Amino acid sequence: MYLIIDVGNTRIKAAVYQNDSLLELVVFDKKRIISEIKKIVKKYTIFKGIISSVATISKFKMDKLKDVLPIVELSHQTKVPFKNNYKTPKTLGVDRIALVSAAVQQFPKENTLIIDAGTCITFDFVTKEGKYLGGAISPGIKMRYKALNTFTSKLPLLENKEIENFIGDSTDTSIHSGIVNGVCNELDGVINQYKKQFNDLTVVLTGGDTNFLAKQLKSSIFATPNFVLEGLHTILIYNSKND
Amino acid sequence: MYLIIDVGNTRIKAAVYQNDSLLELVVFDKKRIISEIKKIVKKYTIFKGIISSVATISKFKMDKLKDVLPIVELSHQTKVPFKNNYKTPKTLGVDRIALVSAAVQQFPKENTLIIDAGTCITFDFVTKEGKYLGGAISPGIKMRYKALNTFTSKLPLLENKEIENFIGDSTDTSIHSGIVNGVCNELDGVINQYKKQFNDLTVVLTGGDTNFLAKQLKSSIFATPNFVLEGLHTILIYNSKND
Repeated sequence: MYLIIDVGNTRIKAAVYQNDSLLELVVFDKKRIISEIKKIVKKYTIFKGIISSVATISKFKMDKLKDVLPIVELSHQTKVPFKNNYKTPKTLGVDRIALVSAAVQQFPKENTLIIDAGTCITFDFVTKEGKYLGGAISPGIKMRYKALNTFTSKLPLLENKEIENFIGDSTDTSIHSGIVNGVCNELDGVINQYKKQFNDLTVVLTGGDTNFLAKQLKSSIFATPNFVLEGLHTILIYNSKND
Repeated sequence: MYLIIDVGNTRIKAAVYQNDSLLELVVFDKKRIISEIKKIVKKYTIFKGIISSVATISKFKMDKLKDVLPIVELSHQTKVPFKNNYKTPKTLGVDRIALVSAAVQQFPKENTLIIDAGTCITFDFVTKEGKYLGGAISPGIKMRYKALNTFTSKLPLLENKEIENFIGDSTDTSIHSGIVNGVCNELDGVINQYKKQFNDLTVVLTGGDTNFLAKQLKSSIFATPNFVLEGLHTILIYNSKND
């Protein structure tokens, strides 16, 4: 069995895979990493693990983890199953490396755009030849609500909400329309730009806001919330073949 | 002559109008409001002024201003030349009231969408019958750059920049694409939603990012950076008719 650990800005997702099936997915606070991983390792026979960290994990904790199980630390130096044409590979987020790995494994020979709607909304494009070209990074839904409140003197902090009408007739509905309808137009627009340039485009939507956004987009997409985990699993298998 | 004072979150714009012509426009820091206004009042024969404040001005400063010249303080109670269908008129930003006033004066009998691209991007729609329906509020370009840097641990703070390719191949170009190409897709998408619902739509683009955005949008728009000032002028004239 393999253990996949995805460290986000606040939460950690840990997933146990057997062959290609997800056996268990645990989500916990970043502070509890060592104790939660120890629990999992006690319950399952873990052969090897991989850890991907968008936020920084201290060397102390990383060393402690390495005492618990053999673990691959995903970085720009890790071997990946695609050709990376990014000009600044050292600053390419590890989550984006994982997403592209999942895409080439699950949609080989297809032009694939992966949209990860989480803290940020990232766009990543990989050609049907398995060449990663790059993409874009824009603020996520929650971040937009936070920004309107933090960087203005009068706007309230709201939670995301589906809109009934794109013409907001109050401050709250104006904000919901500006953010939710705005993000939908942004996503549909960007998807169309890719479609015009690349034939037979496959679009994958993933990340925390997958379900919220999927039903509101005009474009056809594959909605799959755990694509980063699947990509980390792909990378772990890819690196274990040579063990 | 009339004096128009538009107080933003950091800067103040003061404009002197004679009939419908802008004679002088001065931009200065919020702290210098009293001294700068005094200078203008010394230079021109100001009949009356209007002040619109998105950010709060202290009562002390407001009283001092009232000593310098007769002044209308724009609020949701000020008489305006349109019918307001907004459900929360008390929290409708005064800048948005000004924009709609400019629209009904300059484009009477036209369905008009006003997009103000400043700290926030606001959308405001008024029907050809002069009925204001509302719109949307989304984060402005600079705010999006600031949000990506403030609310993540690893992304840099960048200045806005025109993009060459919507597929960013580095962290910087990915951010520029996510924000600039994202905003353009959002704006073009929203404009199309209004076009589908309302015939013969007139679109006005205004605010600090007018020139930056105008050349990058697909939609036809009137680009006019000082629409708020023109709207405040309209409101002042409208309220002076009954003097």
